[in-house]
Amino acid sequence: MPSHPTLTDIARARRFLNDHLTPTPMYRSAGFSETLGLDLHVKYENFQPIRSFKVRGGLYAMSLLDESQRERGVTTASTGNHGQGIAYGGGVLGVPVTVVVPHGTPKVKSDAIRRLGADLVVHGTTIADGFKRAREIAEDTGKVYIEDGEDFGLMAGAGTIGLEIVEDLPDVDAVVLPVGGGNLIAGVGTAIKATNPEVRLIGVQASNAPSVYRSWQEGRTVITATCDTFAGGLATTYPGGLAFDVLKDLVDEMHLVTEEEMKRAIPVVLEHTGFIAEGAAAAVFALCMREAAALRGQRVAILFSGGNLGMDGVREMVRYLPDEA
Amino acid sequence: MPSHPTLTDIARARRFLNDHLTPTPMYRSAGFSETLGLDLHVKYENFQPIRSFKVRGGLYAMSLLDESQRERGVTTASTGNHGQGIAYGGGVLGVPVTVVVPHGTPKVKSDAIRRLGADLVVHGTTIADGFKRAREIAEDTGKVYIEDGEDFGLMAGAGTIGLEIVEDLPDVDAVVLPVGGGNLIAGVGTAIKATNPEVRLIGVQASNAPSVYRSWQEGRTVITATCDTFAGGLATTYPGGLAFDVLKDLVDEMHLVTEEEMKRAIPVVLEHTGFIAEGAAAAVFALCMREAAALRGQRVAILFSGGNLGMDGVREMVRYLPDEA
Repeated sequence: MPSHPTLTDIARARRFLNDHLTPTPMYRSAGFSETLGLDLHVKYENFQPIRSFKVRGGLYAMSLLDESQRERGVTTASTGNHGQGIAYGGGVLGVPVTVVVPHGTPKVKSDAIRRLGADLVVHGTTIADGFKRAREIAEDTGKVYIEDGEDFGLMAGAGTIGLEIVEDLPDVDAVVLPVGGGNLIAGVGTAIKATNPEVRLIGVQASNAPSVYRSWQEGRTVITATCDTFAGGLATTYPGGLAFDVLKDLVDEMHLVTEEEMKRAIPVVLEHTGFIAEGAAAAVFALCMREAAALRGQRVAILFSGGNLGMDGVREMVRYLPDEA
Repeated sequence: MPSHPTLTDIARARRFLNDHLTPTPMYRSAGFSETLGLDLHVKYENFQPIRSFKVRGGLYAMSLLDESQRERGVTTASTGNHGQGIAYGGGVLGVPVTVVVPHGTPKVKSDAIRRLGADLVVHGTTIADGFKRAREIAEDTGKVYIEDGEDFGLMAGAGTIGLEIVEDLPDVDAVVLPVGGGNLIAGVGTAIKATNPEVRLIGVQASNAPSVYRSWQEGRTVITATCDTFAGGLATTYPGGLAFDVLKDLVDEMHLVTEEEMKRAIPVVLEHTGFIAEGAAAAVFALCMREAAALRGQRVAILFSGGNLGMDGVREMVRYLPDEA
């Protein structure tokens, strides 16, 4: 297993990323704060060029490759934001990237990856098929295989979010993050706990994809049979190995939200923030809405992790829209 | 009439604003560029704290008040982004603000202005009623009356967008902006033309609210009887006096788009950018879509001026959504 990044590593990642990305702002949501009875601050990673925090890790992981690796290029598998992050990083740094997506991936997502300059391989029906194919391509071609949750650079890149949060809001009480394979909360948690161990680190998973939730509770890796959630960023059956090794000692609370809770949150988030949350981002808002009483009066920072809901998701959202006041 | 800002004044405004706002990024839209056959770059002013460029002018205008004026406070009238911009500036700089809105203003907009700390006065049925009432309040109380299109600070604040565009994209061929009363295009045009007079400055108005379009064509102020457009940022019956004085010599082209063209553009913008455009922002995309042949091969910068479509607008947008590919 590779080593995990320290605060110093994350600070180094940040210096690199500041040359390539505009820092994302964190704004207090007056609407959520008033209606939920807490002091809620939202960090908008949907303002990134691929509308997701994944660009941080994708770009930084690419920058760590040596010259020979850059020439050979990178393979990875993803149906969504991770693939775009790696493709974006490859485009900026001139590294050839191959992204494997399963059959049935929406055209809008494949187009986005392709337009970022990556080669697209359509293979299999699940993301697990994609991982397998991407590893095969790496073996056959000498390309570097990168997997989310197992990569130093991806974790250090994601961790830069934690540095920005504690600088913008030094007296934050709790930070709430979505958890898929765990890379994000491991990186952000490292930065935050090293800066201020009193900040509560709260993770949110989907009830339908609770592998990290269960692994954290049991203190060992739990693999679930399915991960049937519409929230692509949460859809994994197991924690990343490197990620779990880090997060298991850092996370203070883990919670689950249902598909219905996420879907009901999306129009409320739109009303109060003006932006369309993808499932993983909706999950943290849904948790704050449900657990508002427990968080009452606290200063809470949450991550708008991504805004790629897709047009089908937008169509479905409308069914959940409240009547206008 | 007050004097209009020069490039030096706009640069000064920028130094002030950089201490209070995160600069907005400009991203190339690969989707629009590919489908329209041009090189389209989008500057995202919906990333501002009030989701509109109006925060720049609101904040900067407040900063120019002397101590006595700050104590007395400010009045203005607006149903939307301008009111939020002034309220935001007042909140940051500790200046009491009174915003007059007409009866029938959606609760989501009144709430936003109120939550920014402004006093809300509900009066009359049109924005013209609001202007009158705001001026009366200023006369009765000694508050400073600020009107969009007639204010040095608002124009210099908006102009900072122009400096950012030419720095981020020095070889831009054309800049396309929405035009309401003209403050935005006057400020941005001043900055751009002073930096590079070769850049074409293109304004877009609503067919249902063409006062600046006609004024620019005729070289004199034309007041229209109505301004019946759903695009609140374009809904004015006359050009601002100061704004028209500046823009009449700077603007290279003016165009009109219909209500239907704007409404059809909103879901296309969502598909390619991931963000919900309010009417004025949709207008510039609609123009680029219609005039793609004339702009072919050019490097074009357009302003995503604001993202406050409102929930009714979102509901209506869904009727224009294309089938997913």
